[in-house]
Amino acid sequence: MEPFELTASEAAASIRDGRLTSEALVRSCLERIEARDGDVRAWIHVDPARALAAAREADKTPPRGPLHGVPFGVKDVIDTADLPTTHNSPIFQGHRPARDAACVSITRSAGGILLGKTDTVEFASGGRKAATRNPANLAHTPGGSSSGSGAAVADRHVPLAFGTQTGGSHIRPAAFNGIFGLKPTWGAVSREGVKHYAVSLDTVGWYGRSVADLALMAGAFQLEGVGAVASKPLPQLRVGLCRSPVWSRIEPAGEAALLLAAKRLEQAGATVIPFELPDAFTTLADVQDVIRRGEGRAAFLDLHLSDRHRLHPELADHCEHNHGITPRSLTEAYDVASHARARFAGLFAGLDGGLDGGIDVILTPPAPGEAPEGLHTTGDHVFNSIWTVLHAPCLAMPCTRGPRGLPVGVQLVTPRFTDASLLAMARTMAPVVTDTADGRA
Amino acid sequence: MEPFELTASEAAASIRDGRLTSEALVRSCLERIEARDGDVRAWIHVDPARALAAAREADKTPPRGPLHGVPFGVKDVIDTADLPTTHNSPIFQGHRPARDAACVSITRSAGGILLGKTDTVEFASGGRKAATRNPANLAHTPGGSSSGSGAAVADRHVPLAFGTQTGGSHIRPAAFNGIFGLKPTWGAVSREGVKHYAVSLDTVGWYGRSVADLALMAGAFQLEGVGAVASKPLPQLRVGLCRSPVWSRIEPAGEAALLLAAKRLEQAGATVIPFELPDAFTTLADVQDVIRRGEGRAAFLDLHLSDRHRLHPELADHCEHNHGITPRSLTEAYDVASHARARFAGLFAGLDGGLDGGIDVILTPPAPGEAPEGLHTTGDHVFNSIWTVLHAPCLAMPCTRGPRGLPVGVQLVTPRFTDASLLAMARTMAPVVTDTADGRA
Repeated sequence: MEPFELTASEAAASIRDGRLTSEALVRSCLERIEARDGDVRAWIHVDPARALAAAREADKTPPRGPLHGVPFGVKDVIDTADLPTTHNSPIFQGHRPARDAACVSITRSAGGILLGKTDTVEFASGGRKAATRNPANLAHTPGGSSSGSGAAVADRHVPLAFGTQTGGSHIRPAAFNGIFGLKPTWGAVSREGVKHYAVSLDTVGWYGRSVADLALMAGAFQLEGVGAVASKPLPQLRVGLCRSPVWSRIEPAGEAALLLAAKRLEQAGATVIPFELPDAFTTLADVQDVIRRGEGRAAFLDLHLSDRHRLHPELADHCEHNHGITPRSLTEAYDVASHARARFAGLFAGLDGGLDGGIDVILTPPAPGEAPEGLHTTGDHVFNSIWTVLHAPCLAMPCTRGPRGLPVGVQLVTPRFTDASLLAMARTMAPVVTDTADGRA
Repeated sequence: MEPFELTASEAAASIRDGRLTSEALVRSCLERIEARDGDVRAWIHVDPARALAAAREADKTPPRGPLHGVPFGVKDVIDTADLPTTHNSPIFQGHRPARDAACVSITRSAGGILLGKTDTVEFASGGRKAATRNPANLAHTPGGSSSGSGAAVADRHVPLAFGTQTGGSHIRPAAFNGIFGLKPTWGAVSREGVKHYAVSLDTVGWYGRSVADLALMAGAFQLEGVGAVASKPLPQLRVGLCRSPVWSRIEPAGEAALLLAAKRLEQAGATVIPFELPDAFTTLADVQDVIRRGEGRAAFLDLHLSDRHRLHPELADHCEHNHGITPRSLTEAYDVASHARARFAGLFAGLDGGLDGGIDVILTPPAPGEAPEGLHTTGDHVFNSIWTVLHAPCLAMPCTRGPRGLPVGVQLVTPRFTDASLLAMARTMAPVVTDTADGRA
């Protein structure tokens, strides 16, 4: 097995035990990028010399954190001090931030080695698409807006990478690329140094090729209880099968994967309980749309005033009131969102929503189905919007392949700030849900 | 009258009419700083040559925005591309961001001239205090954390300056310095490039020496309805006199100012209606505390991991769980906050809270009383916390002087996204409420 094929947890353990050097790992990843990225185009900037120098430095010191010597990729809407940060915008070509974003700094403090910046939809919002292709089929999108990070982890260029989500920009690419992704609870991870879009929704997340890798990064961010919280065994697990209020947008491949995952979990002893969200939750996808566009107006006003001709018209629209979002509609959206957030944990506890006995985790689609063909679209975020609005931690897990041979996943969701519990349950569920015997991507 | 004594609106009009050059205005402000700042110590960085060069450029072109040629100051937790941004932290000494924060960029797009950076409490949160003194009495604090911006505008170093508020960091210095300040609705102004503290509360605001100046800047930020919304005349205005649930913390000078403002408004024909916030609002000051500390943990984790020894222990505490904030207490605080936010507009409409006939605006203290003596404290933010949690626009207005000769103000509050209406009413009320005949600071 080549080092680039290792998961982050395996690589970190090998480095810690002296079986692998960070330099060998980074070199292997760079070679993989060299071999594959002409096709996949996941990366905007890679600085091999700098990454190798950092790896050699890591190899000189005893492990100082859980990611010691492990390379990671960063979506190019996230500031990095030693690589450009372009947001895939002509306005930011060659832009060099003076400091790392908080998430980059924290990962470096944990020992991680910054490998490069990954392609993104312009400002993680609208406008220019990434040039990235789906490694499973280059004619298809890898999803977006975290296009490059999703494809890079899937194609084994790097074991870990950061994405962001405001609608469905993190979970959807995980599903389309057949990897694992965690969008943590809103607010649990600092977004300092990450481009703003809709500040009450924007969330930094990460990709990996195993649940253990997602948990490794969650530990670096000191998410409450990570590593300390255990999962119930499968026969005691109550899984809420939620087709969600936007079920009309599902495709056959998405439906098949959801039902396959449910069946596999039942066969392993879990209790699967189909349920519908209460009426107060049915408009949340529209609410996400209003908040995203309403807050997007403040987020892009500076660029609209200073660089209007270089800002994509789709983003300029936010500032020109072309979406009809008024203070009243934005306020109403805020209030519907926060009312639903306050109720959400009660559904799990069986105190609300008619779920007698409650549930431990929601199983729901991460996307309509397989990744669409073409790079003109990144797919539909409608199966993500609801959970993003709820500020809930969301985890994408690979399940199977669709009729076109592309990955199709499922999504797990739990209440706010139960990220540790979500990760623990996902670790228990992954070997059952995914096609691979070891529950890895 | 020296140019430095002009309000921003007067200066902008004079420049537009050719009666004043931007260069003469900036030079006058720089001379004022030279004469006074040895005592007041409002500024961390001023670059006279750069400001004068920008002013001369402005003088060569026809006005391109409402602030054409008008200098402004920026709290040093806000990024500026051509001046250091230190956050008053040893970690950021000499730090030069690569880009302006959104609020700085927007003000420059409106024609404003960046004059310099003003002193702040470390990271606008805790730790090191600003060296700034209250210009009305150098032995007293100017308040904080926007210490330098408040003092600079009050002492006529600059007509406009930016501050930030997470608890009471913007409105309180306005009150202690006898100037006007607007904390707009949360989310209405981008905080991109501003240090994070508690992202669901952090707000950028601005100071001026008249309501017209606050409105001028609000126009630059395209806040909904600014300039288009008119105030009712005073005899039709219904003012809700709210001592607030933290009234036990009021001082005699604060009480006297509040009642004086109410009396002056009544004498001018307004209807003043004393009222209490409903029970659901009584814990909001505690809620602010929980959210601030809970979110502060994520905000400071990167520095805690990378530069722990240079981060003030008060801030490191946020990351070390020394405040006992749990996911459960933070979630509960979020839900109490959002429930109150959703109800708040109903109080004004008379639909909730027993205020028959409703009110147009709340009149409430901006601080307990006069600025405390000494620079070891910046005063108490308890009279600001509630309104910050409510995401409501807040406006500080000078009223009178206290027994020690220091300014004492009042605070006006309206529902979310009614910033334009708040500014219009404040403009009508200021000549009545303030000691000066023209309603200016």
